Amino acid sequence: MEYEFLSKISSPEDVKNLKTEQLNSLCAEIRDYMIHTVSVNGGHLASNLGTVELTVALHRCFDAPNDTILFDVGHQCYTHKLLTGRFEDFTTLRTEGGISGFMRPDESEYDPFITGHSSNSVSASYGICKAKSLQGKNDFTITVVGDGAMTGGMLYEALNNAGAAKNKFIVVLNDNKMSISKNVGSLARHLSKIRYKKGYHRSKRAVKSFLSRIPLVGKALARFVLRVKTALKNTVYKNNLFETLGFEYYGPIDGHDINALVNIFEIAKQENRPVFIHTITTKGKGYSFAEVNPKIYHGVSSFDINEGAKVSSTKSFSDIFGETLCEIAKTDKKICAITAAMSEGTGLTNFAQKYKNRIFDVGIAEQHAATFAAGLAIQGMKPYFAVYSTFLQRSFDQILHDVAILGLPVRLCVDRAGIVGEDGETHQGIFDVAFLSSVPGMQIYSPCYFEELKSIIKKSSEFDFPCAIRYPRGTESINTEFSATDNAFDVVGSGKKAIITYGRIFDNAYKAYTELKNQGYDIAVIKLNKIYPLGDDLIAQLKKYDEIYFFEEGIKRGGIAELIGSRITENNINAKYKIYAIGDSFVPCAKVGEALKKYHLDSNSMIEIIKGEI
Amino acid sequence: MEYEFLSKISSPEDVKNLKTEQLNSLCAEIRDYMIHTVSVNGGHLASNLGTVELTVALHRCFDAPNDTILFDVGHQCYTHKLLTGRFEDFTTLRTEGGISGFMRPDESEYDPFITGHSSNSVSASYGICKAKSLQGKNDFTITVVGDGAMTGGMLYEALNNAGAAKNKFIVVLNDNKMSISKNVGSLARHLSKIRYKKGYHRSKRAVKSFLSRIPLVGKALARFVLRVKTALKNTVYKNNLFETLGFEYYGPIDGHDINALVNIFEIAKQENRPVFIHTITTKGKGYSFAEVNPKIYHGVSSFDINEGAKVSSTKSFSDIFGETLCEIAKTDKKICAITAAMSEGTGLTNFAQKYKNRIFDVGIAEQHAATFAAGLAIQGMKPYFAVYSTFLQRSFDQILHDVAILGLPVRLCVDRAGIVGEDGETHQGIFDVAFLSSVPGMQIYSPCYFEELKSIIKKSSEFDFPCAIRYPRGTESINTEFSATDNAFDVVGSGKKAIITYGRIFDNAYKAYTELKNQGYDIAVIKLNKIYPLGDDLIAQLKKYDEIYFFEEGIKRGGIAELIGSRITENNINAKYKIYAIGDSFVPCAKVGEALKKYHLDSNSMIEIIKGEI
Repeated sequence: MEYEFLSKISSPEDVKNLKTEQLNSLCAEIRDYMIHTVSVNGGHLASNLGTVELTVALHRCFDAPNDTILFDVGHQCYTHKLLTGRFEDFTTLRTEGGISGFMRPDESEYDPFITGHSSNSVSASYGICKAKSLQGKNDFTITVVGDGAMTGGMLYEALNNAGAAKNKFIVVLNDNKMSISKNVGSLARHLSKIRYKKGYHRSKRAVKSFLSRIPLVGKALARFVLRVKTALKNTVYKNNLFETLGFEYYGPIDGHDINALVNIFEIAKQENRPVFIHTITTKGKGYSFAEVNPKIYHGVSSFDINEGAKVSSTKSFSDIFGETLCEIAKTDKKICAITAAMSEGTGLTNFAQKYKNRIFDVGIAEQHAATFAAGLAIQGMKPYFAVYSTFLQRSFDQILHDVAILGLPVRLCVDRAGIVGEDGETHQGIFDVAFLSSVPGMQIYSPCYFEELKSIIKKSSEFDFPCAIRYPRGTESINTEFSATDNAFDVVGSGKKAIITYGRIFDNAYKAYTELKNQGYDIAVIKLNKIYPLGDDLIAQLKKYDEIYFFEEGIKRGGIAELIGSRITENNINAKYKIYAIGDSFVPCAKVGEALKKYHLDSNSMIEIIKGEI
Repeated sequence: MEYEFLSKISSPEDVKNLKTEQLNSLCAEIRDYMIHTVSVNGGHLASNLGTVELTVALHRCFDAPNDTILFDVGHQCYTHKLLTGRFEDFTTLRTEGGISGFMRPDESEYDPFITGHSSNSVSASYGICKAKSLQGKNDFTITVVGDGAMTGGMLYEALNNAGAAKNKFIVVLNDNKMSISKNVGSLARHLSKIRYKKGYHRSKRAVKSFLSRIPLVGKALARFVLRVKTALKNTVYKNNLFETLGFEYYGPIDGHDINALVNIFEIAKQENRPVFIHTITTKGKGYSFAEVNPKIYHGVSSFDINEGAKVSSTKSFSDIFGETLCEIAKTDKKICAITAAMSEGTGLTNFAQKYKNRIFDVGIAEQHAATFAAGLAIQGMKPYFAVYSTFLQRSFDQILHDVAILGLPVRLCVDRAGIVGEDGETHQGIFDVAFLSSVPGMQIYSPCYFEELKSIIKKSSEFDFPCAIRYPRGTESINTEFSATDNAFDVVGSGKKAIITYGRIFDNAYKAYTELKNQGYDIAVIKLNKIYPLGDDLIAQLKKYDEIYFFEEGIKRGGIAELIGSRITENNINAKYKIYAIGDSFVPCAKVGEALKKYHLDSNSMIEIIKGEI
C-alpha cells in the first residue's frame, strides 16, 4: 500500500488539514499499516484496530500536546503514535530501542504519561489537569479508557475525585464489551443495559442522523446543541453511573463514525465541567480474523496476514499450571481459581469451562482478587490466584493485611515472573520476590521446569499458610540430564566455587556447569527450589565454598541474593561473594535472551565470570 | 452505671430474648460503657457511638456466627464485641494481650475477618459468601461499610463483582457523611443528593411511620412488604449508584431507629439477591462532645468524660511536617499537598485552610493519590503526598509504575513509620523501607529529630527524583547534645565496636553510647540520615570496625540492615555483624516503648548487647 495520506502526516496539524472525505481513507491506511507492522513485530492489535476513527477524530478536534490526550493502556494508542510524528519509526515497534508498545513521555511530547498497567490514566490526567489549572492554563485534558479498565478500582477512585471538580476534563469510554476477554461484573451489565435499552436504538439513530448529516459543527452550532443537550441526552440514557460520579454524560456514540465523533467532541468542548463520552467500538475492527476472535489478537506474536495468527502448539508454564489445577480440582472440590481478567493469559481457559462454579474472574481488580481469595480461604476453600507478577504489585497491601496477618493459605500463582521481553519496563516481573519475601509467613517457590511446577501446584493444595509459586513467561528450557526434586534446594557438582540461583536461569547455570566441566573446571551449582524462607542447612552448605556467585533474575535490592549476602556475614562465613542481578533500574524492552545477557544471567556470562574473565 | 441489660448478654441469643422496649436501654448502657472504657484506654469512639442501634438490630435479626457479620474497619465494631461475649474483657481494649480495637478472627468466632485497613470488607465477605455457597450453606453474609470506605476503589471492585451474583449478600451502608474528616468526592455528593432529595424527606416519613409503627414484622408481613417494595423504593430514590452496581437498594433509613432497622433487615432477608441498605447515622451519637466534634473523637487518647478530650499541646512529627510545608508553600507556588482522607492525622489542617487550591483530599484512595501526585509532578508541580506508612502499602504499584519509571519528583511523606502502638499489627509502619527501597531511583530519608524533618522537607522541594521521607507517630525524644546535620550519615564516638541505626531509635543508641562512655566503654554510633541508596563512603567507614550491630525499627527481610549485611560480604569486610530488627512476624498491640524493648531496640538492650550480656 502507498499510504498516500498517512505518510504525509508528521503532526496532528496535518490531520486537521485533511478534507473530511479523506479521513476514512486515512483510517484505512492506518489499519493496513498497523496490521502489517504487528504481523511482523507482534503487538497489541485488536484494541488498536478499534480506536482508529476515535483517535483521528480526537486529533482533529483537540490541539495536542497543549491539550493533553492520554490513552489508558497503550493497547489503544498506536493510531495516536502514527499521527504524532512516529509514522516512519513505527516499524521499530516493540524492538530494543524502538517505538514502545505503550505511551511514553520520553518518546514523544505527545505522550503525556506512561500507561502500561490498566486503570491508572484518569488519576494521572487529573493530576495533569489540576497542575495546568494552577498554572493558569485553560487547555483540555482528554483521557480514553476502555470498559475493561473501568473494572479497576483505581479508575473509580479517580472518577470520584475528578467528577466533583470544575475542570475542562473529558473522559472518553472506548466500550468494546471486552477486557482482554469478555468484560465482567455489574458495570459490564450496566453498560450493556445502556447499549441495548430501547431508548438507545431510537436515540442512536437520532443522534447519528443529527450528528453525521453535517460534516462539521461550527462553534456556534455546538453551542446551540449544548443548549438542547438535555433533550438529546434524555432520549439516550438518564442517570447512569457516570452522572452519579459527577460527569456530564454523552452517548452512546458509534466509535467508528468520524463525523459523529467530531461533532460530539465539539459539543463537549463547550462544557466547563467534567464530561463523559461513551463510544461503542468493535475490537479488531477492519481485520476479519481479529473481529471474529479479538482475544487472540489482543496481544499477538508475528503472523501471516492472509492466514491469521496460529495458536502456538508449544506449551507454556501457564498451560502447565492450568492443566495441573484442572487435574487436582477433579477430586478436590475445595480448589478454586481466581483471575483478574486474565483467564487466557494465565492458562485458566479449560478450568473455566470445566469448573464454572469454582472460577472467579473478578475484572481488572487485583486488590479485590487477593482479599476475595482470603475470604474463600478463611472459610476452608483452597484458592489459587493466578496473576502476572507485575500486576500482583497492586495486591501488596491485601497480601500483607488480609492474607498474611491471618496466615491464610492463599496460593499466589505468579505468572510472567522475571523478564518478559517486548512489553518493556512496565511489565517486567522483577519485583515480586523482593516484596513477597518481606511478607511475614509467606513461602515462595520458583520452579525451573514443568515437572517442578506441577509438583508444587499439587503439593500446595495441602498448605495451611500463604505461598507464592512463581514461573516465567513462555516455555521451559529443558536440560534432560537434571532431575527435579522436592528438596528445598539441590546441589550439582562440587569444588570450591559455587553458583547459586533459582528459577528458569538455573538452566543457564546448569549449561555453564556442564561446559566448564568439559573444560576441566569443577564447580558446584546450588539450585534453590523454595526460595523463601531459607533453611539453616543452606547456610551450612555455603560454608563449603571459597567463592559464591549468586545469579538472580530480579531486582537486586531486597532479593534473595542480598538476603544470602547478609546471612553469610551474620554467620561469619568467610567466602568471596558476588551478586549478579538487576541493579537499581528498570529493564527496558528487549528480547528475553538479550536482556538476560545484559545482566550477565546467560550461561556464557556465567562461564566467563567463573573463569574470571569478567 | 449498673449495666442491667448489657452485663447479662453473653451471646447474640440474649439480644434476641430482650423485649423490644428494653432495646433502647441496652443501647444507652452500651454507649455509657463504651465512653467509659475509651476515656480510660483510648480508642475509636465517634464511629462506634454511631453504630450502636445498627449493631443491636443486626444481632436481633441475624444468626451470627452462622450468618456472617463483618464491619469495615474496626472503628465500628465495639458494640458487636460487647454483644458477642466480650463484655467483661472489654476493659482490656487496646492493651497488650487484650481486646483488639478491630475485628479479629483469633479473638472470637463472631469476628469473621480482620479489618484494620478500610474498604477491604466486601472483598473478604464476598469470598466468605461464595465459599459458604459452594459448601451448600445458605446463611446470610452481611457487611457494614462506612461512606468513607466507599471512596476506596477496592470496595468498588468488590461491589462490581458481588452485585452481579445471585447470593444472600447484604451490604449495610453506615452513612455519617464522614470519613475521618468530611467525606469527599462525587460519591459524597451523590449520597447527599439521596439524603436531601425531596423524595427522601417524604419517603423518610412514610418509611419511618410504616416501619416503626409495628414492633416487629413477621415473616409473612415482610414478604408482603417485599411485594410492594417497588412502590416503596420508588418514593425514595430510583436508579442510584448501588442499583447500577447490581444491588437491590433500600433506604435511606434512620440508623438510630431500632424498629425501623429491624424491619428493613427482615425485609432484606426475603431477597435472594444482593441487597444494599442505606442507613443514616450520627457520628458520635449520644456523647455531646463527640457529636459536636466527631473528628477529635474518631481516634482519641484517654480523656475526662465530663470535660471532653483535650487537644494535646505537644507537637508531633505530623505537626512539624505540616508547619514546614506551609512555610515553604508561601513562596513556592508549585508546592501541593495530597492526602487520602487524612488531613488532620498527617498535620495538613492548616495547609488546607491556607492553600485551598493546593490541597487535594482524594478520599481513602491511596492508589489514585500516588498517581495523581505523579500527574501533578510531570506537569511541573511539587507534590507532597502525606500518608501513613501502613496505608502507603496500597500505592506500591503506582509508586513503581507511575512515579518511578518516569523518575518523577513525588515526595512521599511517610507518617507513622515504625511501630505505632495500640492499633496493633494492622497499622504498624514496618514495611515501607523494604518495599520503597526496592523501587529503582527512590531515595529514602529517615529523620530522628524535628530539625532534621524540617530540613529535608525543605530540601526535597528542589529534588528532581522520587523520594520518601519517613517519620514516626508522636513527638521527638530530644537528646540536646546531638546536633543534626545534612550529611548522608553521621558518626558519633569511636572504638572497634559500632552501632548503626536510623530514625527515632538513634536517640536510644545515643543514650546507650553516653551511658557506655560513662561506664568506660568506647563505641561508635553511625546514624543514617539518608537510608537509601547508601554511598561508598559508608562502606569505607564500616571497614574501621571489628563488630557492627545494626538496630532497625522495621521488618528485617528487605530492610537496610540486610542490605548492609550483604554489602559487607560483597566488599570482603571482615567484621562480626549482628542485626536486631523485626523478624518474620507482625507486631501485635503494645505500647511503643514495650514493643521496642521486645525487639531489643531500646537503649538498655543496646547496652547489654554491646557488653555481651545478651
